Amino acid sequence: MTLDPEERLKRHLTQIVPPNMALWETARQRELDLAKPRGALGRLEDLAVQLVSIQNALKPKHRHKLIVVCAGDHGVVEEGVSPYPSDVTIQQIANFQQGGGAITTLGQTVGAKVVLLDVGIKGDLPPHPKRIDAKIAHGTKNIAKGPAMTREEAVLSVLAGLELVLAQPRVDLVAAGEMGIGNTTPSSAIASVLTDLTPEEATGVGSGLSPDKLAHKAAVIRRAIEVNQPNPDDPLDVLAKIGGLEIGAMTGVYLGGAIRRAGVIVDGFIAAAAALLAEKLSPGLSKFLISGHRSKEKAHAAVLQRLGLEPLLDLGMWLGEGSGAAIAMFIVQCACTHYNNMRTLAEAGVSDAL
Amino acid sequence: MTLDPEERLKRHLTQIVPPNMALWETARQRELDLAKPRGALGRLEDLAVQLVSIQNALKPKHRHKLIVVCAGDHGVVEEGVSPYPSDVTIQQIANFQQGGGAITTLGQTVGAKVVLLDVGIKGDLPPHPKRIDAKIAHGTKNIAKGPAMTREEAVLSVLAGLELVLAQPRVDLVAAGEMGIGNTTPSSAIASVLTDLTPEEATGVGSGLSPDKLAHKAAVIRRAIEVNQPNPDDPLDVLAKIGGLEIGAMTGVYLGGAIRRAGVIVDGFIAAAAALLAEKLSPGLSKFLISGHRSKEKAHAAVLQRLGLEPLLDLGMWLGEGSGAAIAMFIVQCACTHYNNMRTLAEAGVSDAL
Repeated sequence: MTLDPEERLKRHLTQIVPPNMALWETARQRELDLAKPRGALGRLEDLAVQLVSIQNALKPKHRHKLIVVCAGDHGVVEEGVSPYPSDVTIQQIANFQQGGGAITTLGQTVGAKVVLLDVGIKGDLPPHPKRIDAKIAHGTKNIAKGPAMTREEAVLSVLAGLELVLAQPRVDLVAAGEMGIGNTTPSSAIASVLTDLTPEEATGVGSGLSPDKLAHKAAVIRRAIEVNQPNPDDPLDVLAKIGGLEIGAMTGVYLGGAIRRAGVIVDGFIAAAAALLAEKLSPGLSKFLISGHRSKEKAHAAVLQRLGLEPLLDLGMWLGEGSGAAIAMFIVQCACTHYNNMRTLAEAGVSDAL
Repeated sequence: MTLDPEERLKRHLTQIVPPNMALWETARQRELDLAKPRGALGRLEDLAVQLVSIQNALKPKHRHKLIVVCAGDHGVVEEGVSPYPSDVTIQQIANFQQGGGAITTLGQTVGAKVVLLDVGIKGDLPPHPKRIDAKIAHGTKNIAKGPAMTREEAVLSVLAGLELVLAQPRVDLVAAGEMGIGNTTPSSAIASVLTDLTPEEATGVGSGLSPDKLAHKAAVIRRAIEVNQPNPDDPLDVLAKIGGLEIGAMTGVYLGGAIRRAGVIVDGFIAAAAALLAEKLSPGLSKFLISGHRSKEKAHAAVLQRLGLEPLLDLGMWLGEGSGAAIAMFIVQCACTHYNNMRTLAEAGVSDAL
């Protein structure tokens, strides 16, 4: 008997095993013993300990890095919420296939496998080895007028990301990126519904909206929430009514990463909104998460605070695509290598503090 | 005829060519044309433009990364300014030779060549292929009682770092690290003399001095400045009287990097003090500098401000050794790769903003 999609998702979620806190203690002790003043490597030490507990491994691993770039379009773009036309989504995915995008070059630089996942691009592209076609719809509907998608479509978007991660032969670190013109609008709507922010407080300039159009974007987001009345206690309802197909897929990537006991690196604002949905679907999931970078998008800080995360990088970036997460993967790699390869004070014959 | 060391240093400094500002403009234009919203890669874009102008190359390079770990001891340790005994300097260098230190593992992770440079370790180690022996003295003298070294020794320490960089077959990016128990004391003294900070304001906990000993450390630094009366307009006088041999070598590494037209990545606080001396020796040198990370050491921010630098990373690190610079080299690498490998909007067939 085939399970219905929502039942399949629930079954997957039961597979998540919390990080091993006994190993957390072991790793903390090793950090104290390494040949350096205690705590002098700052967040690298915290990351190493977190990875040991997530991966349930005495030697944390970083070699198999995966970045899933989830793509989808947004009906709400017709409201004039983005400075770019929806066509740019498919154009950039074609560019990524050729290796000419920011995420493809940065992913290559950090040694990650970059997979493109089409769950909702408006147009159609011929098959390409770097792209997985799991299209659920040709973009969402306009959330200012009604739900973005059906509940089943929302579940399928999450499953697309989740099952892609489960299908990988090996995953040590995973990140989700996105390409979807207009997707800061649903992200801000999600942030507003799942935090204390008003729609106006949750609305930022996205990919460079001119300041005079910001109030209009906030009004669209307010209307989307009023029209759809998403239930904040039901993340699939929130995703279906005011979310996006690629946002659901990102949520799935995070859940899949946790099932695989991988370190999960969250990119910027859109990624954080997807992570908030993942935490709602599987409370405690944020223990698997590492915030890659501080986005310039306005509501990012509030969402991270809700998740209990502090970004690793603050490079003034606001591109999305997974670009900040790709760079942050190297910081996580450094956390692994210092932890695995440094000698202890005793092994090195180095005197401890007086 | 052999030049005297100070004359040799002066001749080297005449070889520094300022960054090419015409190429700076060319690079800025390319950043505007790449397939992303303008400015969305934040500091990566600024770094790419800086590197193009420094390297005088349309395609900035990152492959040949060099980290010079300069080592020396400090007579002032007898005043009780460090929680560690001087022996740790030689013990850690022996550990680095075996690859068991933070800088050796992080340097390897980022793909850098790590060279150890002994200009002033108190003890002696048998020769090792990873260490260059350019020892000038077995540590400095106690700066609380008189000058750290002679002016000629100070010049020789700078030349040791500088000529090591000149001797490398290729250098695209270079950083200096250090190992020298007690070296935040001379660094704070230098910071106090070359900025507006009082000795008390310039003094931090270094490698973990207990807070009750901080006032004592500041008093030692105040005494060192009073006893020696270094001339703030003469950086070699400052280095000789209240500096350190490895600090001089780091200054030399920065000057050598500029001569080689390499991107120069500055580690934390001690490195910034050495960079301040380099800027004094060759005004405008800071244009070659990239601040790797924000150290937790108290006076770091003031020194960076004087140099006009903003750190790339803020990971709560305060280890030294070049560890922060090693990680930051990857950010600089990402600046190169996105700049060199992304396609322009036109090449990618991606629509520009409306």
